[in-house]
Amino acid sequence: MALWGGRFSSETRNEVAQYSESISFDRRLYHFDIVGSKAHVTMLATQKIIPAATAEAICSELDKIEQRIESGDFKYDIALEDIHMHIESALIDALGAEGARVHSARSRNDQIALDIRLYLRDEVDKLIGGIRDFQRALVAQSHANKTAVMPGFTHLQHAQAVLFAHHMLAYVEMLDRDAERLADCRRRINVMPLGSGAIAGSTLPIDREAVARELKFSRVSRNSMDAVADRDFAIELVSALAIFAMHSSRLSEDLILWCSQEFDFIELDDAFCTGSSLMPQKKNPDVCELTRGKTARVYGALTALLTMCKGLPLTYNRDLQEDKVAIFDALDTVKMILQVYPPMIETMKLKKDHMLAAAGDPSLMATDLAEKLVELGVPFRTAHHRVGALVKYCREQGKALNEVSLEEMKISIPEATLEFLALFDPIESIAKRDIVGGTGFEQVSKQLDFWKKTLDF
Amino acid sequence: MALWGGRFSSETRNEVAQYSESISFDRRLYHFDIVGSKAHVTMLATQKIIPAATAEAICSELDKIEQRIESGDFKYDIALEDIHMHIESALIDALGAEGARVHSARSRNDQIALDIRLYLRDEVDKLIGGIRDFQRALVAQSHANKTAVMPGFTHLQHAQAVLFAHHMLAYVEMLDRDAERLADCRRRINVMPLGSGAIAGSTLPIDREAVARELKFSRVSRNSMDAVADRDFAIELVSALAIFAMHSSRLSEDLILWCSQEFDFIELDDAFCTGSSLMPQKKNPDVCELTRGKTARVYGALTALLTMCKGLPLTYNRDLQEDKVAIFDALDTVKMILQVYPPMIETMKLKKDHMLAAAGDPSLMATDLAEKLVELGVPFRTAHHRVGALVKYCREQGKALNEVSLEEMKISIPEATLEFLALFDPIESIAKRDIVGGTGFEQVSKQLDFWKKTLDF
Amino acid sequence: MALWGGRFSSETRNEVAQYSESISFDRRLYHFDIVGSKAHVTMLATQKIIPAATAEAICSELDKIEQRIESGDFKYDIALEDIHMHIESALIDALGAEGARVHSARSRNDQIALDIRLYLRDEVDKLIGGIRDFQRALVAQSHANKTAVMPGFTHLQHAQAVLFAHHMLAYVEMLDRDAERLADCRRRINVMPLGSGAIAGSTLPIDREAVARELKFSRVSRNSMDAVADRDFAIELVSALAIFAMHSSRLSEDLILWCSQEFDFIELDDAFCTGSSLMPQKKNPDVCELTRGKTARVYGALTALLTMCKGLPLTYNRDLQEDKVAIFDALDTVKMILQVYPPMIETMKLKKDHMLAAAGDPSLMATDLAEKLVELGVPFRTAHHRVGALVKYCREQGKALNEVSLEEMKISIPEATLEFLALFDPIESIAKRDIVGGTGFEQVSKQLDFWKKTLDF
Amino acid sequence: MALWGGRFSSETRNEVAQYSESISFDRRLYHFDIVGSKAHVTMLATQKIIPAATAEAICSELDKIEQRIESGDFKYDIALEDIHMHIESALIDALGAEGARVHSARSRNDQIALDIRLYLRDEVDKLIGGIRDFQRALVAQSHANKTAVMPGFTHLQHAQAVLFAHHMLAYVEMLDRDAERLADCRRRINVMPLGSGAIAGSTLPIDREAVARELKFSRVSRNSMDAVADRDFAIELVSALAIFAMHSSRLSEDLILWCSQEFDFIELDDAFCTGSSLMPQKKNPDVCELTRGKTARVYGALTALLTMCKGLPLTYNRDLQEDKVAIFDALDTVKMILQVYPPMIETMKLKKDHMLAAAGDPSLMATDLAEKLVELGVPFRTAHHRVGALVKYCREQGKALNEVSLEEMKISIPEATLEFLALFDPIESIAKRDIVGGTGFEQVSKQLDFWKKTLDF
Repeated sequence: MALWGGRFSSETRNEVAQYSESISFDRRLYHFDIVGSKAHVTMLATQKIIPAATAEAICSELDKIEQRIESGDFKYDIALEDIHMHIESALIDALGAEGARVHSARSRNDQIALDIRLYLRDEVDKLIGGIRDFQRALVAQSHANKTAVMPGFTHLQHAQAVLFAHHMLAYVEMLDRDAERLADCRRRINVMPLGSGAIAGSTLPIDREAVARELKFSRVSRNSMDAVADRDFAIELVSALAIFAMHSSRLSEDLILWCSQEFDFIELDDAFCTGSSLMPQKKNPDVCELTRGKTARVYGALTALLTMCKGLPLTYNRDLQEDKVAIFDALDTVKMILQVYPPMIETMKLKKDHMLAAAGDPSLMATDLAEKLVELGVPFRTAHHRVGALVKYCREQGKALNEVSLEEMKISIPEATLEFLALFDPIESIAKRDIVGGTGFEQVSKQLDFWKKTLDF
Repeated sequence: MALWGGRFSSETRNEVAQYSESISFDRRLYHFDIVGSKAHVTMLATQKIIPAATAEAICSELDKIEQRIESGDFKYDIALEDIHMHIESALIDALGAEGARVHSARSRNDQIALDIRLYLRDEVDKLIGGIRDFQRALVAQSHANKTAVMPGFTHLQHAQAVLFAHHMLAYVEMLDRDAERLADCRRRINVMPLGSGAIAGSTLPIDREAVARELKFSRVSRNSMDAVADRDFAIELVSALAIFAMHSSRLSEDLILWCSQEFDFIELDDAFCTGSSLMPQKKNPDVCELTRGKTARVYGALTALLTMCKGLPLTYNRDLQEDKVAIFDALDTVKMILQVYPPMIETMKLKKDHMLAAAGDPSLMATDLAEKLVELGVPFRTAHHRVGALVKYCREQGKALNEVSLEEMKISIPEATLEFLALFDPIESIAKRDIVGGTGFEQVSKQLDFWKKTLDF
Repeated sequence: MALWGGRFSSETRNEVAQYSESISFDRRLYHFDIVGSKAHVTMLATQKIIPAATAEAICSELDKIEQRIESGDFKYDIALEDIHMHIESALIDALGAEGARVHSARSRNDQIALDIRLYLRDEVDKLIGGIRDFQRALVAQSHANKTAVMPGFTHLQHAQAVLFAHHMLAYVEMLDRDAERLADCRRRINVMPLGSGAIAGSTLPIDREAVARELKFSRVSRNSMDAVADRDFAIELVSALAIFAMHSSRLSEDLILWCSQEFDFIELDDAFCTGSSLMPQKKNPDVCELTRGKTARVYGALTALLTMCKGLPLTYNRDLQEDKVAIFDALDTVKMILQVYPPMIETMKLKKDHMLAAAGDPSLMATDLAEKLVELGVPFRTAHHRVGALVKYCREQGKALNEVSLEEMKISIPEATLEFLALFDPIESIAKRDIVGGTGFEQVSKQLDFWKKTLDF
Repeated sequence: MALWGGRFSSETRNEVAQYSESISFDRRLYHFDIVGSKAHVTMLATQKIIPAATAEAICSELDKIEQRIESGDFKYDIALEDIHMHIESALIDALGAEGARVHSARSRNDQIALDIRLYLRDEVDKLIGGIRDFQRALVAQSHANKTAVMPGFTHLQHAQAVLFAHHMLAYVEMLDRDAERLADCRRRINVMPLGSGAIAGSTLPIDREAVARELKFSRVSRNSMDAVADRDFAIELVSALAIFAMHSSRLSEDLILWCSQEFDFIELDDAFCTGSSLMPQKKNPDVCELTRGKTARVYGALTALLTMCKGLPLTYNRDLQEDKVAIFDALDTVKMILQVYPPMIETMKLKKDHMLAAAGDPSLMATDLAEKLVELGVPFRTAHHRVGALVKYCREQGKALNEVSLEEMKISIPEATLEFLALFDPIESIAKRDIVGGTGFEQVSKQLDFWKKTLDF
């Protein structure tokens, strides 16, 4: 009979035990369950709710249980439902009546709220570290190819020449916001729920502040009903992870394009690609494709969490148990991305000549012509039309923009001078975009310095 | 080095192998991979692409591999990526060069398309069977309580008295549509993709129709590029599962409400409930709550699948590997629901007296008053207003509808006669709703007969 | 005071009226509301529930109301909430007490279920027609470029040479499944709910079968509680639309890639592109990009519908009103896609020389080498390794596959003969893939004939 | 021909204009587009890129355009696509060549990024204000019913007696996190993107810091490619709105339950309810139901935004235009909730007697018995079992917990004394939960004071 089974006449049916068990996935919380229980019983002893000797015995036994779990010497049984019941049951097996005191003034509702907050606080710290490493890899690759020039795209069409480093640093910015969001979320995770009981607090004289101090929480939760019913922090976290995954999917899309025979801008290291079972020539950017696919998976986890919580009455409902399936899956997915991308970025090889050749497309400099006209006092919209007319003329003549004579250019752009014919160098074009945030060499160099300092390497 | 590794200079990095492996979840396809390979090599032999003796040796060895897998005597290794490579590799280990012929005129792209279609076709058949059992449980419980009366709700407010059986049969209807949708989806699953190769078919003289016949497909796919890029059937299936889960969540919500101390209409068997770690009196309808939560999980799988496929260029992209994670999770979740609900419904106890008492609320019969007026020739909207005025009068007087005198009733309803005062019996009210689809006793009885015949029990 | 306001003491607050109104979006159902009401009152008269003259007067007035709505001469007011109340109110304004008989034996719950089913049945027919047009445009473009050759892609890497027509016909297959799914969904839409009342049917002697015949439904609904609570058909429809949108997004992705300067396989007509406010040279494939974005919007509608229904108790709950926002948005989006794509596909220009040049990449024929070896009796996996080794050799030597001498080829492939050196022609390669579903010229030609016949043009 | 049409040979097709227009929804940005343009031209003049007189003329004309828009005297035309082109076009109409200077050193890509950030910054401030009002309404209602007692629920089962105010304050906590999340998101919105151009910055000597100061942004964006491709802030905002909506849906669920005839804890004011077209007695909590439904709609918007951005290559792609549809819909929905809920909460009437009666269920005090035993030194798990056994005994005897004699109680709980029989008063039970965050009268009173001070009323 389950530990809570006093009032029950029959055992849980086996299918029901399988349906409702969480031990298969919540066992990963064991360390935080134990840490939380130790802080709890220490406080119970200080408050004279249980004897000091009992608290010591429990803490000592919990350490042993932790060692057994870590060494693989711990038996799991779905009849015991979850990690909390497994550990409490092991305690009672070992200590008898004294072990049976551990759950005083506590419910699984506040216990799981504590465990998951401890776990996620720790995970968030690791995630932020992983994001910093990802940024470092991007900055390092950018630094190593500071002067590499490529076409910049909007609508996947050639737009303007840019520095490869500028393109990479766009991702560094995105990752920075990801780390910021995680840090914001961490503040809301870092609130101590234990002592909320099942719903209403406890009639026993517990000291919640002491537990919060011991476990390094910034404060205790203010409302017991909220504390056991709240899964905001999980939704917020997974929504931050979804945005991170989206960023990864965009980078992946860029890399997949660049690896194609048509773009041919980069080569990923063999160690990050796989081949085809049929076609001997294939080397596929699988990691990048999988990341797009796994982004969808993180979105699925977010959908699940939000849907799960919608319309639930207060307070705890068993629906909430499913939160962990979604949280863990999203976390594991993101952590794998963070492991694979830094080395993949670091080992990626640029085909700078191909990039530069593509950036030589003179249409990339059409805006420079228009802005040159603005400098000469032509209203921008007029300038835009004149250059547009030149583009049209070139298309009709089957010429590139830099293949027309001055006379031809003057048909569309009366103000054109020989100087205009010299505007088609992508490197010059980049150099001129010397404003904060622009792709100019100086600006990108400053940004690289900023990030190296910020990321401390 | 991987089986496809001829052109590669370095091994797949370990993190990448972990990131990209699917053996941890696609191993469940082993039987269908083997069945497909046997049909494939048999055809290859018939077509003289490989020797007949080789085909026989391969088929025989595949049977042995299947036995090893089923007995647990088969080693998995993420370096071999997926179930296809595991089995091909085991074949080659056993048969050498002859085993190396199995993948002739085949790619993993069409092979996985075949495996997953074989697997899902089989699963769909099981799902439909499970849904029929679920319907039977609902019909049986309805039959056993044919005359139980309860309040019907709209907006969770008392609306009109209904039969409990009528309420249950609403779910039987929903489940029927679920089974229909699965059968429709099965038609689109039941198309044979093998022979599409990686993308373009094969230069070898294979006979696709023969494979289709052998594997009992209704036809072969008509376009190789579509065949390897298509995951419609998976999305359609999971969307049908999502609707089924939604139905389960609605039934669960009803049951949760009915189990509450406030409704107190039913009692679920102890075997389907669990208790509280803190509160000794608790008996919670966990299964129903979990089903609401797990519905969210199935929605998450659907979101993942749709998102995964959006904007993918043709043809196969590795993103598609993630399909199985979502499909399997949705399938497993729904199969568990199908295992738990029939016995839970069958063992559920009605508190018919409480139900009937609640159905005695005279406001449930307000519509009967209005329809009585319509029978007397009063335009419906006028009738509605008069009864509405009576309701308002009663509220102001603190009386129930059936507590007013005829004189009081006549203030709002001049047409009222003594007959009107007799309209407040829920059983009479139900009896009068004797139209097809209505809650009248006769009608519900006919429906029960219809379903017992349809469901063959 | 609202038509239902008999029991209410105070008016609906203005913010609440705004919050709860649906007239701003459900007004589009007016025609079907009127058609349904006419069938309803005709039946009421036949059943002697209302006088025949009243039914005639109502039908005649409903026609006038329809004309007023269509001519823009009809006033909407959120105080009247929805299209049903607007029309009933206009009837009563015109006909007084006789108009007030229209709602006899009817609730808005079954009325809206009827209206939306009539509306969606009609829309589905139009959608299927639109999909057929889309297929015709693809087949026509394929037919006009029957022999155009291009590289086929897996993982966005060159895989094997294919016919452009084969690639296009893959989309024709997808669209065919879309049409099938809609037709399946139509069967479940085509069930007549009227007569279910608010929840329990009616006490008046209505004839539901007569209404169903009049409105050409295939049958009446069997359970009144299900009939008013059911929104399956909407979810199923939007999930079919989501898959259609996904297909459109994949086609769009292909077209965006092919329009890029790097691929340069096609040019979209100017009429389907837009320019840049800054960059004069830009011609962007906006339609395709928007379609990817709008696919996300259809997914959002599906998420909304599924989430909305999850965990609702029976029967009708006001949450369901939001269904129309999602359904209409998804429908409108898909209908716009269906309007824009056929002409865009028809006017698209192929750059066949570029396509063919890209298809000349000899690595596309690596599989042909391996399959040649299989023909010579080499086990496939061995053949794959040998060709893989040749690919690796070529990469190390900086040579293309077709640039090696026979001697060089023999290093990796001892069986190679002069014939092997002739395997690098993409046209020959395509011709050899002459199996059902393959990209061979004969096969694709047969498929084109099949589709032209099937699509009747 | 469009303003960008210099290079185009044919006009945009009408269906395409309809497909791609955004003026129907982005017109609401007009004020921020104008504010942004004024800051931009003022800077252009300071930097001598355009004449000072031109800047003045443009600013003055922009003010006139704003007035025309606000007075309804401004013509919209889908041929002009979006609000930016409408305003630029009106400027050129009015000022000719001088107006044509406004778009110097600017692209719509950075312009829309600016507009939407200005708009959302403003909206977020309003949202936070609305949330504070919502909190005040909850606190006021709680304060007015400080001593109202009700059963607290877990799993929708009676758990422990709680204060109504405690239950309401749980929602105040949730809303507080919502406001915090919005404030965090605001920091990421408050970054100035103008000057990023289409992708790469500008060749003209603009001063981005000046524009940022003028428009009160905290800093300029650091990377132009990121600045035009980024929609993180929108996703983050809508994900915060989704969590808020989820909270609203939970409150709504509680209210719907409490309005049911079975719970009967509260009555919502008539002004917040609507009736039935068929059933005269009905008064439905429509607002609450709609909020559950509208929560699904906000989730749909989030799904759309995330899906839209997944896998997009850098930088701007037209898909992003769809962001506004989702953002505006989510914002409008949430703003309506914020308008309707405070007055609905304020006017809600408690049925305190019913609540108290329900809280009298002695099983709610079962935990008090167990904790009493803990005080006497019984290990908690043992105590739980003993009380569980008592519960089982009572069920078998058909008695309530407080109906057993001391002798009967001692069968299960040998330690029981007369004091135990006095533990069944819900008010006493509440009073004893006097720990931080608990439902004790003192604690809740302190919380009310805290919130009144925090919310400044």
